[in-house]
Amino acid sequence: MLRTKLTEMLQIQNPIIQAGMAGGITTPELVAAVSNAGGLGTLGAGYMSAEQIRLAVTQIRNLTDQPFGVNLFIPEHYQVDRDEIDLANRALDTFRQQLHIPLSPDVTKMAEPFNEQLAAILDLDVPVFSFTFGMPDAAIIAKLKQQDICIIGTATTVQEAILLEQAGVDAVVAQSSEAGGHRGTFAHDAASALIGALAFIPQVADAVSIPVIAAGGVMDGRGLAACLLLGADAVQMGTAFLTCPESGAHPVYKNALAHATEEMTTITKVYSGKAARGLQTTFIRQWSGDESLLPYPIQNALTRDIRQAAAKQNNAEFMSMWAGQGLRLLHAQSAAALVEDVLRTAESLLKKNVATE
Amino acid sequence: MLRTKLTEMLQIQNPIIQAGMAGGITTPELVAAVSNAGGLGTLGAGYMSAEQIRLAVTQIRNLTDQPFGVNLFIPEHYQVDRDEIDLANRALDTFRQQLHIPLSPDVTKMAEPFNEQLAAILDLDVPVFSFTFGMPDAAIIAKLKQQDICIIGTATTVQEAILLEQAGVDAVVAQSSEAGGHRGTFAHDAASALIGALAFIPQVADAVSIPVIAAGGVMDGRGLAACLLLGADAVQMGTAFLTCPESGAHPVYKNALAHATEEMTTITKVYSGKAARGLQTTFIRQWSGDESLLPYPIQNALTRDIRQAAAKQNNAEFMSMWAGQGLRLLHAQSAAALVEDVLRTAESLLKKNVATE
Repeated sequence: MLRTKLTEMLQIQNPIIQAGMAGGITTPELVAAVSNAGGLGTLGAGYMSAEQIRLAVTQIRNLTDQPFGVNLFIPEHYQVDRDEIDLANRALDTFRQQLHIPLSPDVTKMAEPFNEQLAAILDLDVPVFSFTFGMPDAAIIAKLKQQDICIIGTATTVQEAILLEQAGVDAVVAQSSEAGGHRGTFAHDAASALIGALAFIPQVADAVSIPVIAAGGVMDGRGLAACLLLGADAVQMGTAFLTCPESGAHPVYKNALAHATEEMTTITKVYSGKAARGLQTTFIRQWSGDESLLPYPIQNALTRDIRQAAAKQNNAEFMSMWAGQGLRLLHAQSAAALVEDVLRTAESLLKKNVATE
Repeated sequence: MLRTKLTEMLQIQNPIIQAGMAGGITTPELVAAVSNAGGLGTLGAGYMSAEQIRLAVTQIRNLTDQPFGVNLFIPEHYQVDRDEIDLANRALDTFRQQLHIPLSPDVTKMAEPFNEQLAAILDLDVPVFSFTFGMPDAAIIAKLKQQDICIIGTATTVQEAILLEQAGVDAVVAQSSEAGGHRGTFAHDAASALIGALAFIPQVADAVSIPVIAAGGVMDGRGLAACLLLGADAVQMGTAFLTCPESGAHPVYKNALAHATEEMTTITKVYSGKAARGLQTTFIRQWSGDESLLPYPIQNALTRDIRQAAAKQNNAEFMSMWAGQGLRLLHAQSAAALVEDVLRTAESLLKKNVATE
């Protein structure tokens, strides 16, 4: 056991949080396995309907009696312009042709309604609610607090961490540039808000008094131990869990990760309209610079059929394969073994003094 | 004292290396102060003539009897095309007009001759030779080894670290994306080789058996302690030394650093033709995307008059102000106090166990 202020707050044994990766990665089996191992499993529910959230949380509760979290995306204001969508769709048809799927499908649903997702979370009275892409309004924070649901926000700059603390969150994820998947940036442009963990964690820890959760690049016990010394109270790991047998990541995606190295990721907006770090693909290379790229969540809705067809066809080049920069440190082991391994190494590093005189 | 394999090799007391920042930053006073404090001071000689190197090393030796290093840039092959230079010069004249300096000056010297710089280093028999931007050829490595000069290369990817080890360097600087100043990248494109330290250091440490020096984002003892747990044998700090009274950084530059925050830096090629991290300026904003940008070292030679005039006129917006991402952690204190402070905090963090059960 490695206790910190955050493990007390969340009533978990180990300061290891499994990131709420969206898109079917965080199966109830993965979430429960992490929580049963003493960490905090998190359901990545950003793309899930309220009904899907209810079902998954019920399944998680059948598998564990330990605390777990549910992660949502704070919605953005967006405006649908049919001409822009037609233009983007025509550009995307190049890829649809290669996948032999219907051209320019009529996309009407851009994102799952946040208010319904949130209502499910309140109904289900989940222990921990985490979010990214912004800040929920004060009324939502108040409702969550009323139910004693622990609230965790995501910051990619010090200023964002300060804003989240002021909004009343209980802890803040400090997402550094190493992190895979979508950037949580909401108060800066995405390119400025790529701060490496070694610089970022201590600056966030100095600026806020709530517990800081380091996210990005943590793959093993060295990462956990280092983050604790930098001022974090816990780590959030995403990429490291992707290749666990419990993860719902596509086999083609798992295989690509296993063969990838640290310089093979890139930050791209082409899949969703929002910056995210993932493995370089043909889709990224061919779309980058295309002016018909639309903002999130529209772009995300427009590329969904392409990503789904690519997955069905085992075609990695048109899938989104989010990944952080610690790829050479990836192992395929059970979630419980990973948590145990990270913890044991960190404990041993923190106990063992480097030779001092 | 905090001993590691590298401190033994370099015969220094503390695993803290002051980066060999070029451009007049690393005065003999700064280099000597760091070495006298038990770290390794480094003369940033990339832009210095052989004669200037001889003079500075003599001055350093008058101020300290401790080991120190000299850093050079490995030269690149380049071709001068007068038409391209005329075109770039015309674009740069916009800035020259604003600074009221002669337009389109006739630039003939692109860089100091590397063979002369190296000859000075061999003549002077300096204790440590470090380099960036590539790898010296085997004959040079052999000559340095013959004189027992310790050789330190710079890597920005794991593959580069492996190449440097194979070439025979004694230690490798692992330059992470947090780092200020020029990227040492030589085997990949600069954009791919921006790996955050938390992911980068352990991957390099696993891949090579020579000592690893973590560079980028280290500003205080938390950074040093974290890097040692991640697998590094020492840290190299640049930005943290910029605001020391011994540093030769321009007062306007020091002042800008003191007011900057972590999201205010950017990676740019506009000053030198080579990617470097520095504070955002008007010059960067106005030149980015200009197609007449030339490769290093030509661009560097062409912008020299602009940077020098800007410095004389105290105009920060046209100066290059390299900086890493740890800016909120910057203090103005003597180099000796900084080294002492970093060391004491790191020792205390490494001795103090986080509460374990």
